[in-house]
Amino acid sequence: MKDAVISTFNHFKSNPTLVQSITNYVVMNNTANALLAIGASPIMAHAHPEMSDMSKIISSLVINIGTLDEYWVDSMMLAVDSANQNQKPWVLDPVGAGASAYRNEVLTQLLSKKPSIIRGNASEIMALASVNIQSRGVDSSNSSDEALQAGIELSNETGAVVCISGAKDYVIREDKISIVTNGHPMMAKVTGMGCTASALVGAFVGTGKDAFLATTTAMVVMGVAGDIAAEKAAGPGTLQLNFYDVLYQLTDEEFAKRMRVEFL
Amino acid sequence: MKDAVISTFNHFKSNPTLVQSITNYVVMNNTANALLAIGASPIMAHAHPEMSDMSKIISSLVINIGTLDEYWVDSMMLAVDSANQNQKPWVLDPVGAGASAYRNEVLTQLLSKKPSIIRGNASEIMALASVNIQSRGVDSSNSSDEALQAGIELSNETGAVVCISGAKDYVIREDKISIVTNGHPMMAKVTGMGCTASALVGAFVGTGKDAFLATTTAMVVMGVAGDIAAEKAAGPGTLQLNFYDVLYQLTDEEFAKRMRVEFL
Amino acid sequence: MKDAVISTFNHFKSNPTLVQSITNYVVMNNTANALLAIGASPIMAHAHPEMSDMSKIISSLVINIGTLDEYWVDSMMLAVDSANQNQKPWVLDPVGAGASAYRNEVLTQLLSKKPSIIRGNASEIMALASVNIQSRGVDSSNSSDEALQAGIELSNETGAVVCISGAKDYVIREDKISIVTNGHPMMAKVTGMGCTASALVGAFVGTGKDAFLATTTAMVVMGVAGDIAAEKAAGPGTLQLNFYDVLYQLTDEEFAKRMRVEFL
Repeated sequence: MKDAVISTFNHFKSNPTLVQSITNYVVMNNTANALLAIGASPIMAHAHPEMSDMSKIISSLVINIGTLDEYWVDSMMLAVDSANQNQKPWVLDPVGAGASAYRNEVLTQLLSKKPSIIRGNASEIMALASVNIQSRGVDSSNSSDEALQAGIELSNETGAVVCISGAKDYVIREDKISIVTNGHPMMAKVTGMGCTASALVGAFVGTGKDAFLATTTAMVVMGVAGDIAAEKAAGPGTLQLNFYDVLYQLTDEEFAKRMRVEFL
Repeated sequence: MKDAVISTFNHFKSNPTLVQSITNYVVMNNTANALLAIGASPIMAHAHPEMSDMSKIISSLVINIGTLDEYWVDSMMLAVDSANQNQKPWVLDPVGAGASAYRNEVLTQLLSKKPSIIRGNASEIMALASVNIQSRGVDSSNSSDEALQAGIELSNETGAVVCISGAKDYVIREDKISIVTNGHPMMAKVTGMGCTASALVGAFVGTGKDAFLATTTAMVVMGVAGDIAAEKAAGPGTLQLNFYDVLYQLTDEEFAKRMRVEFL
Repeated sequence: MKDAVISTFNHFKSNPTLVQSITNYVVMNNTANALLAIGASPIMAHAHPEMSDMSKIISSLVINIGTLDEYWVDSMMLAVDSANQNQKPWVLDPVGAGASAYRNEVLTQLLSKKPSIIRGNASEIMALASVNIQSRGVDSSNSSDEALQAGIELSNETGAVVCISGAKDYVIREDKISIVTNGHPMMAKVTGMGCTASALVGAFVGTGKDAFLATTTAMVVMGVAGDIAAEKAAGPGTLQLNFYDVLYQLTDEEFAKRMRVEFL
């Protein structure tokens, strides 16, 4: 399985993808820079009349609900419907799941449209499982370990690959789980690192590779780049900067040498 | 009083806050990064249906009118009304006050809702005093000294703490004035430094501390971090980067040693 | 002609401009930072009721269609009409021209309002010529050489100065062409470098100088700053950072020494 992750990384490097992101205002710049640095191309269009045209040219779609409003929610639904119609994989990043009734309603609607992959932090995945299963309260825990059971339930309910990112990243599909332990705590002090992870998941799944492998590979890339970037960082400012440099320079040898992933 | 500033800083470091910003597109990334670096948490939601829910979980609210439109103005009004109802302090950053009749109308409406704190540059505070008092022309001066009288009038009229930022930062409430002389001229060459100051004011006032002290403390943090960041900066690019690193690393000893504040 | 470029640069440095940008969410921060670093002032307002007021105080307007929607398209039309009425020059950046029918319709409408300058990459200029002339298919080529003929046609049809940026930047007006060969390939790995070029074109044309010279000067500034920034860059993260530092520090001597421009 580790070899499959390495080969997914290598396959991407020679088959870069075109990723449409309908994402939040805060992180657009970060995620575009991360996609460019790793070799992918970003498109950030959200006008209703062009969602169908965009869907034809993209490799994959990322939906991030960080800064919603009614127009953008409609953009998301149109883009997802087009992606489903054109058989393009799409990633859901449920930012702030549980923080408002409105967010939960939008997420219920998005889940019904069958995302290929869902990536969030522990409390988001727990909130989302709760929204979907409608049987548990929202736990404010931030540990990805505690969210594991919620992630398994969410994957079973939705059929999506579920990724819970944190000190350990879990990637879950039915009975398969990968655990990525790369990454550095200072990454949580840079805005949009989670959103960037979702964008990279989109980049890797856009090659047409298996969603479980693509997601695992993207999380290893995030973690390895974070590890290297943090070694030379005096704080979150330099960490963010180094992160793009490292993504740009990351070779398959360095990737393979640094990766820390296990499969259950 | 200087001890009170130091203790406000220390109190914040062990009581980090959750700050909702309805702010302009240009600076969202900067302000989120600054809040994270200092230890606070940013929320940037503006959808009408979730303004009431968000208000329940936040420590404070920052309203920045840099990039207005009709939807966002309504978001601001809803968020402010919820904040007032939930007794959460809120900060007004009147970006571009005086630049258009529309901006002035929006500001008149916001002022009527009683901001806890108003932070702007000299020409914005002068324009705002003019809008509010309706008795003076807009002066295009950029000196915080010249704006001092306007700031005092604005504080008296609105009951808000008024902060005029510039080479000297003035923080005004009724008969009390603090003057912060930390900071570096190159900060004006990085976009969103004023908006970041407003975000930090929100972070500090969110602890429940007195608004005059919280604002003074935030302006000292801005200035001290700018001083340190500029020492190692080759230009505004490195200044911005260093600024986040310094916010992240800033200890109470360094803060106390560097702070330059006087009270009138 | 080279002396005229140098003198355009020098003239700007002592006559900094106020540039309104109605641009995409992804790059707003970058372009504001670039304008500040070179000495100009950015305004990013798009509310319909203030487009007319803003037009009175600006030196020039930049329209960038990267992230469209219906409200923003109306903002663009209002801003352009006001600019034309107030005889302020305006720059069109046709991001993603050809990617959707909607984008092409918006561009047809914008072209009819007579931009002073159009700046895009090769495939955008080729798509735009095709939209305008309605006689050729869209070529997906990325070479500015191949787009040269399309650029000449577009300039003839519209009367605008046309700039095709790439490894070579072409600036075209009727029978005059300048070719700028400064710049570094890694610039393509930083989001918004093209948009930043358009913003700088706006900054230089805002001085009232001839549009052909102003555009050539802006492209030399971009290329020279990119050259210097790349020398010390480990990747696109440090490149972007250095770029702002270099813009801030750029002297007329360094500019003149480094510039590589030819005139046909």
